[in-house]
Amino acid sequence: MTEIKLKKSVHHRNQIQADLNRKIFQEAHLLTLNVLGSPGSGKTSLIEHTVRHLASQFKILVVEGDIETERDADRIRALGVDAIQFQTHGACHLDAMMVAQSLENTNLANLDLLIIENVGNLVCPANYDLGENLRIVVGSTTEGADKPLKYPEIFLNTAACVINKIDLLPYVNFNLDEFEAGARQTNQNLKFFPTSCTSNEGINQWCQFLTDQTKKN
Amino acid sequence: MTEIKLKKSVHHRNQIQADLNRKIFQEAHLLTLNVLGSPGSGKTSLIEHTVRHLASQFKILVVEGDIETERDADRIRALGVDAIQFQTHGACHLDAMMVAQSLENTNLANLDLLIIENVGNLVCPANYDLGENLRIVVGSTTEGADKPLKYPEIFLNTAACVINKIDLLPYVNFNLDEFEAGARQTNQNLKFFPTSCTSNEGINQWCQFLTDQTKKN
Repeated sequence: MTEIKLKKSVHHRNQIQADLNRKIFQEAHLLTLNVLGSPGSGKTSLIEHTVRHLASQFKILVVEGDIETERDADRIRALGVDAIQFQTHGACHLDAMMVAQSLENTNLANLDLLIIENVGNLVCPANYDLGENLRIVVGSTTEGADKPLKYPEIFLNTAACVINKIDLLPYVNFNLDEFEAGARQTNQNLKFFPTSCTSNEGINQWCQFLTDQTKKN
Repeated sequence: MTEIKLKKSVHHRNQIQADLNRKIFQEAHLLTLNVLGSPGSGKTSLIEHTVRHLASQFKILVVEGDIETERDADRIRALGVDAIQFQTHGACHLDAMMVAQSLENTNLANLDLLIIENVGNLVCPANYDLGENLRIVVGSTTEGADKPLKYPEIFLNTAACVINKIDLLPYVNFNLDEFEAGARQTNQNLKFFPTSCTSNEGINQWCQFLTDQTKKN
């Protein structure tokens, strides 16, 4: 019982901070993404492409969540865009307090788009609202089409699913329709963006979706 | 403070059960593997190959840990080998109590090899000893060579790392030496088995390693 009560209290504290984050992001007219996915699904590569396509139109900041290393933030900074690295040192997900802490020295009023890359994990990040506008899941063709049925919670409250690495479709046993049908069992309104960060296929459609969403804020 | 104390208590309880599991496995002269890795790294495919190669020599049982679905156990049963599916319904890792519960109706004395496939996750399962003899990590070429530096804890106390999907090496940006060097920063004694469950490359070496380990029990 102690364990269950504590879990509730952790989530309750997270939700209070997430609601506060959301209010602050809204007041700054900022579109905020929480990008989830397995380790190696291509989250950072997708964010690199997104930044390359949209940095001339929008002022972007990227928050990189990782257990260790500054590598992902360095990849974004190499493109001339600001990035903050948050190292969780063992924690399996970002929470709303970590996001608030990462941003405490940032003037959000100067920004249009905030992209938060979560720790690579299909389980735990699903349970922590960060205050984002849109939750995005990055899957990939090499992970297998059964993943949405095995990890259903990640698709709850998710706006869009990028299915990455479609350049590898000729070499892997992956059925796109099966993946999409599995994810729709959890979330009927999910939008899908098959993409490749190697061949650039689908990147324009994904960036157009983000541009349309940015205009709503 | 409450949170930290509780975490310690959860781990303490797990360790007591893990030590008990280990004692029971040893008395049954049973080699036990705890197989970890990202979702879609090919853990179940590797276990299918292992079972096909070794089922004529050893009596094998597979415990499949998943958040949802009976799919992986069904894949093993289709090969004529017993499998128990343990569904965690949201929990991000197996613990020693779940393993004991899965095995409560099993006569371990009749078995030579117990393979436990953990929930697909490079973070949380690293912190839970199940009482296994060997912890095995399954990585893959599509996940990127930086993963050992970003998820170092998974390689602690790990005996061997299978680097799967080497048939995809011509199509992905992956440096095997960089991956191995990164993992060795955490664990100098780690053995590596580059494999492909599609082309069968490396499967014989992996199964020979397991055969040698089984003889030690």
